[in-house]
Amino acid sequence: MTVAAVRADLLSDTVTRPGVAMREAMATAVVGDDVFGEDPTVRELEDRVAGLLGHEAGLFTPTGSMANQLGVRLHVKPGEELVGDSLAHVLRAELGAAAILSGISSRTWVSQRGRFRADDAASLMITGVGPYQVCTALVIVENTHNFGGGTIQPLEEIQRARQLTRERGVAMHLDGARLWNAHVATGVPLDAYGREFDTVSVCLSKGLGAPVGSVLVGSREAMAEARVWRKRFGGGMRQAGILAAAGLWALDHHIDRLSLDHGRARRAAEAMAAAVPGSVDLSTVETNIVIVDVAVAGWSGADFVAAALARGVRTYAVGPGAVRLVWHLEVDDDATDHAVEVLTALLAEGPAASVSA
Amino acid sequence: MTVAAVRADLLSDTVTRPGVAMREAMATAVVGDDVFGEDPTVRELEDRVAGLLGHEAGLFTPTGSMANQLGVRLHVKPGEELVGDSLAHVLRAELGAAAILSGISSRTWVSQRGRFRADDAASLMITGVGPYQVCTALVIVENTHNFGGGTIQPLEEIQRARQLTRERGVAMHLDGARLWNAHVATGVPLDAYGREFDTVSVCLSKGLGAPVGSVLVGSREAMAEARVWRKRFGGGMRQAGILAAAGLWALDHHIDRLSLDHGRARRAAEAMAAAVPGSVDLSTVETNIVIVDVAVAGWSGADFVAAALARGVRTYAVGPGAVRLVWHLEVDDDATDHAVEVLTALLAEGPAASVSA
Amino acid sequence: MTVAAVRADLLSDTVTRPGVAMREAMATAVVGDDVFGEDPTVRELEDRVAGLLGHEAGLFTPTGSMANQLGVRLHVKPGEELVGDSLAHVLRAELGAAAILSGISSRTWVSQRGRFRADDAASLMITGVGPYQVCTALVIVENTHNFGGGTIQPLEEIQRARQLTRERGVAMHLDGARLWNAHVATGVPLDAYGREFDTVSVCLSKGLGAPVGSVLVGSREAMAEARVWRKRFGGGMRQAGILAAAGLWALDHHIDRLSLDHGRARRAAEAMAAAVPGSVDLSTVETNIVIVDVAVAGWSGADFVAAALARGVRTYAVGPGAVRLVWHLEVDDDATDHAVEVLTALLAEGPAASVSA
Amino acid sequence: MTVAAVRADLLSDTVTRPGVAMREAMATAVVGDDVFGEDPTVRELEDRVAGLLGHEAGLFTPTGSMANQLGVRLHVKPGEELVGDSLAHVLRAELGAAAILSGISSRTWVSQRGRFRADDAASLMITGVGPYQVCTALVIVENTHNFGGGTIQPLEEIQRARQLTRERGVAMHLDGARLWNAHVATGVPLDAYGREFDTVSVCLSKGLGAPVGSVLVGSREAMAEARVWRKRFGGGMRQAGILAAAGLWALDHHIDRLSLDHGRARRAAEAMAAAVPGSVDLSTVETNIVIVDVAVAGWSGADFVAAALARGVRTYAVGPGAVRLVWHLEVDDDATDHAVEVLTALLAEGPAASVSA
Repeated sequence: MTVAAVRADLLSDTVTRPGVAMREAMATAVVGDDVFGEDPTVRELEDRVAGLLGHEAGLFTPTGSMANQLGVRLHVKPGEELVGDSLAHVLRAELGAAAILSGISSRTWVSQRGRFRADDAASLMITGVGPYQVCTALVIVENTHNFGGGTIQPLEEIQRARQLTRERGVAMHLDGARLWNAHVATGVPLDAYGREFDTVSVCLSKGLGAPVGSVLVGSREAMAEARVWRKRFGGGMRQAGILAAAGLWALDHHIDRLSLDHGRARRAAEAMAAAVPGSVDLSTVETNIVIVDVAVAGWSGADFVAAALARGVRTYAVGPGAVRLVWHLEVDDDATDHAVEVLTALLAEGPAASVSA
Repeated sequence: MTVAAVRADLLSDTVTRPGVAMREAMATAVVGDDVFGEDPTVRELEDRVAGLLGHEAGLFTPTGSMANQLGVRLHVKPGEELVGDSLAHVLRAELGAAAILSGISSRTWVSQRGRFRADDAASLMITGVGPYQVCTALVIVENTHNFGGGTIQPLEEIQRARQLTRERGVAMHLDGARLWNAHVATGVPLDAYGREFDTVSVCLSKGLGAPVGSVLVGSREAMAEARVWRKRFGGGMRQAGILAAAGLWALDHHIDRLSLDHGRARRAAEAMAAAVPGSVDLSTVETNIVIVDVAVAGWSGADFVAAALARGVRTYAVGPGAVRLVWHLEVDDDATDHAVEVLTALLAEGPAASVSA
Repeated sequence: MTVAAVRADLLSDTVTRPGVAMREAMATAVVGDDVFGEDPTVRELEDRVAGLLGHEAGLFTPTGSMANQLGVRLHVKPGEELVGDSLAHVLRAELGAAAILSGISSRTWVSQRGRFRADDAASLMITGVGPYQVCTALVIVENTHNFGGGTIQPLEEIQRARQLTRERGVAMHLDGARLWNAHVATGVPLDAYGREFDTVSVCLSKGLGAPVGSVLVGSREAMAEARVWRKRFGGGMRQAGILAAAGLWALDHHIDRLSLDHGRARRAAEAMAAAVPGSVDLSTVETNIVIVDVAVAGWSGADFVAAALARGVRTYAVGPGAVRLVWHLEVDDDATDHAVEVLTALLAEGPAASVSA
Repeated sequence: MTVAAVRADLLSDTVTRPGVAMREAMATAVVGDDVFGEDPTVRELEDRVAGLLGHEAGLFTPTGSMANQLGVRLHVKPGEELVGDSLAHVLRAELGAAAILSGISSRTWVSQRGRFRADDAASLMITGVGPYQVCTALVIVENTHNFGGGTIQPLEEIQRARQLTRERGVAMHLDGARLWNAHVATGVPLDAYGREFDTVSVCLSKGLGAPVGSVLVGSREAMAEARVWRKRFGGGMRQAGILAAAGLWALDHHIDRLSLDHGRARRAAEAMAAAVPGSVDLSTVETNIVIVDVAVAGWSGADFVAAALARGVRTYAVGPGAVRLVWHLEVDDDATDHAVEVLTALLAEGPAASVSA
């Protein structure tokens, strides 16, 4: 089936396309050669995001992966390691980049749906044991947590980890691709999260709806170093102000509206949980992501995704029996209604009916 | 002095900013999530460039460095090497990326202003000597050659190298960031160059004037592999069609006009050579780049660059006594006249006068 | 204090020095240039170990770390990952080598004292989800488990993991540095363990008492590839037969005697557990390693190690309140008696008495 | 044919086997665990070599490749580059290790038979040009030069390079695998060479005849860092004093005798040059290596090597029409006579006769 026929695209919040006003912002952006640091719109975006997150400086990057990989690079010397949870995007969905790009070793703890606990991090860290063992240089946290299902990280656990790591000389990096969602859902200011970390990456092209780009923030010195590595990694774009303009527009218009996504996700989750008990654990629906246990209805993840797509609803299998739904600015109330109708029907029917259909 | 006061910006052809029509093309582009292969404008650009260069498939990248690094990665296994000339952009101006990103070793020959000779490549290659020596897997060629001064590579030398490498199982990659210039200057079709290589990178944001992006071309299989590595390197952008639309517009409108840049560069070079004999070797002015020997007038490169900038002409020191001038679509006849006037005056005056000024 | 004054050296089984007979074997070894594959004694050792472990071919290496790193390299392509437990020697005590040498990413599960469970491995593996997530290519198992305290891995768990990984195209590597101890303690034949893995490393310079060297075993093809990488890693020694001769002698004379080490470790553990209840969990003493909980007596690991050394017993702090004791062929019954006397006294006294002494 | 039937083994000076006295030194060596820095014989060797070369400290390694790779690692940060000649062992015969192990980029100049000239190095170095170009951090020199044919490097060129690099903040590493030969041939003290470099590697298992091992020397601080990386690379051997004892014996007994190798090489070269004019350029025979131009007699390198081996003389093809002969302590006057007889006969006969034989 063609993409055009999709009536509710819950694949990911990365699929959003810029609207008219955002395009207008791009079309009129003042630009320069950002490799030489001469793009005023990029600078404005970098300064603005740094300010929002309580940091000195920012760096625009073509992707969230590059922002994360620059961040971890800054803190971990070759031969040292980072630790994080086993579902972390940095370790699971960036194709092993930290090892390839920076020679960074890693060990992980196993979490409950990505929920961060300071003790998990502390128990894994190796510091001060001399030159025979690997040295932990960085703890990574993801907020909200993608593969955990949009999980919001407890600020107090982050703060406790900050204290424990500081005592042992270990840095902290926040993969904040969806930090906007955590902020909107909890009301915790962005910089209250941001200040607990040495570096933070945020994404403009997920919930915020810009076409391309992320921003890494940290100290001025760290960003200067990251700028060189950005060029080495192949991310030194020229008149990137075109893209930065979309990011600025998104910061102005697309943060608060994330509550709409959260509301629709919650509504859909409740409808499915009511229709097919056990299909959705409502206690895990915290932001714009819903994980559906399709196995309870006898489905494999892959088959369910195919069946839903055939009825105009695009979803993503995150496990053998688990399917992820993500709300974003292209999924309105009507699309949500349609999705709920299709997905609950599939859950109720089970795989056999679908195949015979 | 501020950038705004620059009357002739000869720093690099990377500084070009999109005009109204190109911005309009971006603002109306149909886009999708290119990480999932769903951006129709990106696809159109990739197919179009692949076709122009005589290859099966293309891949859009945020920078020319990433396009080159993906290209060399495809051909050289970790522990093998590439060979090229010692001034090659891939080895000199990409910050050691091939070694960092791909564990690629390299050896180089020393050329005359970047001019490629098949014999230089052949004499360096190591093949078939067993597991004790490094194995040469790739020859890289740059056309036109940036640090060589816009040097056009002889097609017959490329063809001869193609034959020599094929016999020995060695691949060839073309860094064609400025291949458009070679094509316009010589009339050799783009695909006549392109077909001699396993992969080719071309840049849309140098002479062609698009804000961001390059395209790598090669076989369908190679591009599929490069796509995965692009994501690993952090170059998997989302709605990149915004940028690709500018690239398509540039292909339609900015290739043939490169002859204007070549004409202005030649005119300026002749004026300077006439005014200050020895300052420019006219035999080396082949495209849009002019290398000025400022040492003949007693200048250091750095001082000359500063003095020229103070009079509104931006240039770049490529050596202790050598300054590079690059023509592009933001340098018209008036700007060229101004540049010639300023630069010849500085050459005539010598550094002492300038300092006292 | 000098090393000479140590009466019981329980630091590690790596400290063993060759005796007269082993030295005689080295002094009379027939040797050749092993880089060219011409050392008959190295070949004999490689074939012998391969046979013992049920594999086609072997490769001699200067260290166990290199044997492990060559093993994991064979199975994991750059950008892919290995999974193991968070205390694994490969990830914890080889200084991040897999990421540095081979661009290998890693994720870990948290085990009980290093005990391997197939389910832990299976739940972490990522396979068949396409090009957006890291791909698990290898599971590593360590037997016996060093930081776990000499833990023996259950053969049935290994076999079950073998089945689960095979179905999903994932390889298995055994870090068998102390596989000899598992074999002697359980009676399970070496090749019964060995055949469940694609590659196995075993160490000759720990319990077996040879001065230098490990052997990696696997298929003939894999060992040929490992041989090239051994040279690249700087491990291509010349007349290594000198060292291999010690290894052969150790295979003949030092495997069965490991039961003496196990008996002494058990006897010491029981004495300490009886003298200071809670200091040693006897259920965890499986081979030649004893972990003492010195925190129950108020000691920090570091202070306890220093105090014991002052009384002629060398030990190793493996955690803030945990000290490791390792038996080997230079710790006889008398040394064991002395160690028990010193260590139980220190535990009984507590740190205050020691400091005042 | 079997190795036993070789009457003159000119393959390489790596093939030497330890004699009775050297074996006795190994058998009686006092040893300890060198990973913990407790092997007195290794320490003695490291101190002794450091003293000979005018440096503070030394580090024993299993191979010359590892010593070189540790040396270059110390000076070149990831993303920076080293420069050397295109035939350098570090770049040509260590399987691309610098890029793999340390992310080191490299560019080379083309030399005459490996002869080092300060100007070649200086013209390639890139320093002080900011964050857009690769930064040269290290110049490597090889003395004597293996693939150049045992070429001795002029001390004055080294000294001039030292001055030029110092001014520009670039380090220098000496691959002195065969520095002993340069010292014996010229009478220049070892430390006169050694003091011009930040680090020097020397090999004990080539001309000196020890079975295994090299030593890297440099500052105390640098060697401490190299020790950690040696473990990371898998080179942290345990009771390595066994091998170090052979090295110490070789230093006492095998340096001065290298003049015998030089004399035999010269005698053989003269005989061949006289018998077959053009086969050997006598001006290039400086130490223990002779390069024979077998192409002048119509031979390919590979065929000549095979034909010579069939008559009991082992040699090595270093190019399509070039064969290398290396003298060492297992090639005495008789073996030299035999080699000359066989090789001159083959040159005189040409390939046709040999094939028909």
